[in-house]
Amino acid sequence: MRIFILMAHKASTIPFNLNDLAGAAGRMDLVARFISSSLFISHGIRKDTEVYTILNGPTDPPKTIKFVANELKMVSPDERNIASHIRNALFKKISSEWILNSPGIYIARKSLEDILIEIKSRNVKIYLLDEKGRDIQTGISEGAFVMSDHINFSESELATILKYADDVLSLTKTSLHADHCAIIVNYYLDRLKEGKTISPPSR
Amino acid sequence: MRIFILMAHKASTIPFNLNDLAGAAGRMDLVARFISSSLFISHGIRKDTEVYTILNGPTDPPKTIKFVANELKMVSPDERNIASHIRNALFKKISSEWILNSPGIYIARKSLEDILIEIKSRNVKIYLLDEKGRDIQTGISEGAFVMSDHINFSESELATILKYADDVLSLTKTSLHADHCAIIVNYYLDRLKEGKTISPPSR
Repeated sequence: MRIFILMAHKASTIPFNLNDLAGAAGRMDLVARFISSSLFISHGIRKDTEVYTILNGPTDPPKTIKFVANELKMVSPDERNIASHIRNALFKKISSEWILNSPGIYIARKSLEDILIEIKSRNVKIYLLDEKGRDIQTGISEGAFVMSDHINFSESELATILKYADDVLSLTKTSLHADHCAIIVNYYLDRLKEGKTISPPSR
Repeated sequence: MRIFILMAHKASTIPFNLNDLAGAAGRMDLVARFISSSLFISHGIRKDTEVYTILNGPTDPPKTIKFVANELKMVSPDERNIASHIRNALFKKISSEWILNSPGIYIARKSLEDILIEIKSRNVKIYLLDEKGRDIQTGISEGAFVMSDHINFSESELATILKYADDVLSLTKTSLHADHCAIIVNYYLDRLKEGKTISPPSR
């Protein structure tokens, strides 16, 4: 089981304009790419994957949208398609319990901490991705991977995550977008699953 | 120098509807994500990078759009922004020579083979990315990386590429989108640049 969790600090919590994902919708483009990167392979979907995006922007935060890969229908990897599914879910009257909005897409009034508690209770290993963490090469397994959007985690968010995280991993010194990090994590896990080593490439 | 080359078999060669990138525009969403993945890091751009996308769809193929990172202005990583720059370039009257359309964005009537000849003449190593290639772990360097969109290269395209390619690399057995492959190639090159090894991660 692979779980990808994105804290989207400014992402709209009310229906937004699909033509302005990167602007007024609070970097919903990045949220959509994160979901796409976590779920899609060429001509297919990663069946064993869930994605949680915590939308924390105006005007009704927090709301979390959950994509469950093996239940999804009619979702394609482009930003506009994924954003339209998020937008539809934001019309829903919500509560603290998950509500199904369309096949495989759920919404609830849940904060980052609520999500971490929920995942911890399923006995899934939680990894924080952070440039100051230990090199991912030194150990990784299937689990839940927590990342932030274009805004770094606040001190208090970090404290919350570290309460539940089993480990902190870094990828490179280069600061990468969350959607790129999801791809690299998937790649590592794919290689491990295929029994391939990650040996030093020569120049 | 890193160069990413995408053969976009169905991508529109005339101005298209920005609200239908994945449909009528011939998977222009994938083209845009490929450019985004090749160029962008968090809060910045990879200055030493060029991206070539060969648009080969209706109704006026082939046209190649070139993004030169260190000249770019006002380009952001969302699909719609990048697609709008491509769309603008498609209004241009073109010839076989590069024409600057906006800062860092060029267009020309060039085929895949024209691009390969041009890059070869600059003495840049050319890599084909293909699932049947040798594992990328066994050797990689900066160079030009040639990939296909959602449609596999035809036999004749492959023959053309192999005429110029120095090497054929594969990433995993899992078939990945071209934009995801660009991210992984960038990641490997980043790690090598940082002097980090790619050692076997333990479980």
